[in-house]
Amino acid sequence: MFLRNCWYVGAIDHELIDGKLLSRTLLGEHVLLYRGDSGKVIALNDRCPHRGALLSRGRREGDAVRCMYHGIKYDGSGKCVQIPGQDMIPPRLRVRSYPVVEQRPFIWVWMGDPALADPALIVDLPYLRDPQWKGIPAYLHYDANYLLIVDNLSDFAHLAFVHTGTLGGSEEYAYVSKPNPIERLERGFRVERWHYNSDAPPFHRKVIPDKGAKVDRRNIATMLIPGIFTMETLFAPAGQAAQKGDLTGTREYRNCQFMTPETERTTHFFWSYLNNYEGDDSTISRSLLNSLIEGFMEDKAIIERQQQTLDEDPKFEMLAILADGPLVHFRRVLAKLIEAERTAAANPPAESRRSETATI
Amino acid sequence: MFLRNCWYVGAIDHELIDGKLLSRTLLGEHVLLYRGDSGKVIALNDRCPHRGALLSRGRREGDAVRCMYHGIKYDGSGKCVQIPGQDMIPPRLRVRSYPVVEQRPFIWVWMGDPALADPALIVDLPYLRDPQWKGIPAYLHYDANYLLIVDNLSDFAHLAFVHTGTLGGSEEYAYVSKPNPIERLERGFRVERWHYNSDAPPFHRKVIPDKGAKVDRRNIATMLIPGIFTMETLFAPAGQAAQKGDLTGTREYRNCQFMTPETERTTHFFWSYLNNYEGDDSTISRSLLNSLIEGFMEDKAIIERQQQTLDEDPKFEMLAILADGPLVHFRRVLAKLIEAERTAAANPPAESRRSETATI
Amino acid sequence: MFLRNCWYVGAIDHELIDGKLLSRTLLGEHVLLYRGDSGKVIALNDRCPHRGALLSRGRREGDAVRCMYHGIKYDGSGKCVQIPGQDMIPPRLRVRSYPVVEQRPFIWVWMGDPALADPALIVDLPYLRDPQWKGIPAYLHYDANYLLIVDNLSDFAHLAFVHTGTLGGSEEYAYVSKPNPIERLERGFRVERWHYNSDAPPFHRKVIPDKGAKVDRRNIATMLIPGIFTMETLFAPAGQAAQKGDLTGTREYRNCQFMTPETERTTHFFWSYLNNYEGDDSTISRSLLNSLIEGFMEDKAIIERQQQTLDEDPKFEMLAILADGPLVHFRRVLAKLIEAERTAAANPPAESRRSETATI
Repeated sequence: MFLRNCWYVGAIDHELIDGKLLSRTLLGEHVLLYRGDSGKVIALNDRCPHRGALLSRGRREGDAVRCMYHGIKYDGSGKCVQIPGQDMIPPRLRVRSYPVVEQRPFIWVWMGDPALADPALIVDLPYLRDPQWKGIPAYLHYDANYLLIVDNLSDFAHLAFVHTGTLGGSEEYAYVSKPNPIERLERGFRVERWHYNSDAPPFHRKVIPDKGAKVDRRNIATMLIPGIFTMETLFAPAGQAAQKGDLTGTREYRNCQFMTPETERTTHFFWSYLNNYEGDDSTISRSLLNSLIEGFMEDKAIIERQQQTLDEDPKFEMLAILADGPLVHFRRVLAKLIEAERTAAANPPAESRRSETATI
Repeated sequence: MFLRNCWYVGAIDHELIDGKLLSRTLLGEHVLLYRGDSGKVIALNDRCPHRGALLSRGRREGDAVRCMYHGIKYDGSGKCVQIPGQDMIPPRLRVRSYPVVEQRPFIWVWMGDPALADPALIVDLPYLRDPQWKGIPAYLHYDANYLLIVDNLSDFAHLAFVHTGTLGGSEEYAYVSKPNPIERLERGFRVERWHYNSDAPPFHRKVIPDKGAKVDRRNIATMLIPGIFTMETLFAPAGQAAQKGDLTGTREYRNCQFMTPETERTTHFFWSYLNNYEGDDSTISRSLLNSLIEGFMEDKAIIERQQQTLDEDPKFEMLAILADGPLVHFRRVLAKLIEAERTAAANPPAESRRSETATI
Repeated sequence: MFLRNCWYVGAIDHELIDGKLLSRTLLGEHVLLYRGDSGKVIALNDRCPHRGALLSRGRREGDAVRCMYHGIKYDGSGKCVQIPGQDMIPPRLRVRSYPVVEQRPFIWVWMGDPALADPALIVDLPYLRDPQWKGIPAYLHYDANYLLIVDNLSDFAHLAFVHTGTLGGSEEYAYVSKPNPIERLERGFRVERWHYNSDAPPFHRKVIPDKGAKVDRRNIATMLIPGIFTMETLFAPAGQAAQKGDLTGTREYRNCQFMTPETERTTHFFWSYLNNYEGDDSTISRSLLNSLIEGFMEDKAIIERQQQTLDEDPKFEMLAILADGPLVHFRRVLAKLIEAERTAAANPPAESRRSETATI
């Protein structure tokens, strides 16, 4: 069960260069994504309604695409515009299209009711537009349900045990510290954590000159429906009053991660890890990209194995500990929204019902 | 669901040289095929009824086969003739045998009621017996239901889009020409198509001296139950009255293709592509063999992907266009025959019912 | 369906050297096996009850193990002893442990009710403790239900056809000899067979000096619940009154094989093939190890193919011949024990029922 009436990241802009026909499964549906000659990004169901051949194996013609099995052509809205050897085009022979919004570098796709696809609902992440913030958007595929990745990101506790040598976290600190309180949001949660006077974590140490200096680290993590995670990280010289606003000598990061279900048991994982200080030194972004991949691989091994465990034993019920507060809240919010969507789909629109009520 | 009471090609003669025990799944059943010392081809169920070991991993002894797990021996009719360490042979310990007819180069097998296995029902293809017609029989395996291959062959429309660089077909011609009328047959269909003054298609151009000459091309395609496709192709110098019988300078081909279900989602594809003009120049047959494989590979990629689409979404319903007339007719004919076979199997024989009616 | 209240071999001692966390599926359950610092072998369910991560990917700490996802620690009894960032440990957060007995070289595990795990129920094989008997314990994995291996070992008839070139057996002898009578035991069977004046089988011939000498061979095979096979083999110079006790010049072997279900369709196969005459010449054990592997591979190919046949056609019913007496008996004994175990599990303990009866 997925939430359908919301925006998901479907691709990164560089995946669609040169008019490439990209076939990607989103929420269990085969979607064809491409940039037409007009520059517009188009998303169509990737299946010719004639005999089921993949349109992504067809040929792009301007903003249109031609199935290369029997030559049937569809325009960017999915309307059939040519059947070789046949004059009359039956109206049922059309391909479903999906609303698309491009916000560089990400391509957002709406998998639900097109009438509800309001671009204003896309989560606004200003640093993705700001040239001062540099990063290299990237992609990973997970053999796991996207919520297992959401769970992982919702929990700082795992940093100390999974990422000691990469993204950081200290076992000793984990044993003595308590879970942070979270701010419950209508569509997710927000949590802020300070960790004072600690060693810089390995990914950060790699890209700074003074590798031995102690730091005060602040993370503000936000998780939003349907699976959008951001973390605003600040490193300040230890002991400086950064918490009170003194940002001298600080370095900041913006972590943007987008989990899009491919199927019930696989996920597209898009991300960009931005920094505000590299200027013209692109080795920083590239080092950070590699550090992040290293860290994600540590998670991936665990998360994909969790998925296998759930596949092997669907009756397995996880037992929550205190640190699971955020993920429990997020799953509850999501479940409510999915339930609301199902109820709405099963019932007539509000207007007609209101008028019925009036006549009684 | 397969039609059982009909002949299917089960093997090519060269597959059974040197007494080889060939294990092949036909219509979902494991069949052991071999040529006994008597020269006769034998088809037995490939499973020892004792413990289920494969007879094809056993040892041929004359026309018989011995299971090499516990040494039980069966003759060519499937009758058990020896149990080591046991004198009495229980009558139930026998292997099912299948009627077989060899018509070089193909081995035909009857998977239905043996009492109905009349060799006269085998489709007669005289050029397979005629030494003037040369070709190299060959085999391909498809990960797709055999009817998807039948569909493919039933439709000339795909030639222009799938096989432009191999078997030929012109996009420009496809846009302006209309589907050909078909002749509906009791067990299939026949369709004839002339294409005048066109370039020779690549596979033909490769084997003729005058590569630039325009040709008139005539195809007569026939598709018969259960999945037997022939195409009689003639190339005449363009403008010559070939249609009225002037065969000067023509070259002809006979395409014989046999689709035999392996399982509901896989197919054995046997074929021979014959020409009547190579004489002693076997490079022609060999070039044609390779051109055909090249063309079939283009179909195979599409057809196997169709099967995946159907597996992923069993509710997907194809939408017919005008060019689908022949395949729609063929599927209807086949469905009727399968239905009739099921009804016959479910009801007592006609005689007994007629006599019952008489007494009322 | 497995018998749970009995001892199965779960590992060989050398698999647990250096504190290795061994993950092994036994009777469908993921089990973590390791030797703690105390020297004790510990068996825990290999799944952290928090989020389902594998404990075998965690870290051993003394006799305890720590899950390396969120750092939760369990002692050797499965009790949770630490949750980082949380003081109160909920009692439900514990891991199932399994009774273990080490009898070198094998580790026995009890998968049923721990209260019934009596070490005295382990089959006693004195030659495994006797330094005169030498052998190299080894492991094979089978893609087949363990009973198909039990069947194989229950039947001398296959030796002549499967193992002619390895473990021996003569086709000619198989055709004229009859199945041996078996001694039915409460938990299996015993069968004794003499084969006089025959060639030494290949595995034995390899390791003896006089390769051409005829031998009298005696095998005493025993198969016990749940899948424990032993064979006591004696080779005497042909014609000597070995059967009456003259053991001059004899050589003996002890074959110990343990079939432990991994899943319904896969099996762990542990064995040790011992001889009583090598003294300090370890080339004998190593030659025998390799001969046995060669022979088992011959069985494995057949048995795994049987499993495939049963998977493909679950309705296939095997037909017994006379030689199947032992395996039929064994399966009956096992089925009864499994049935008794199910009945006991479904009913309240005898005491309470007896008292209820008394009040009526």
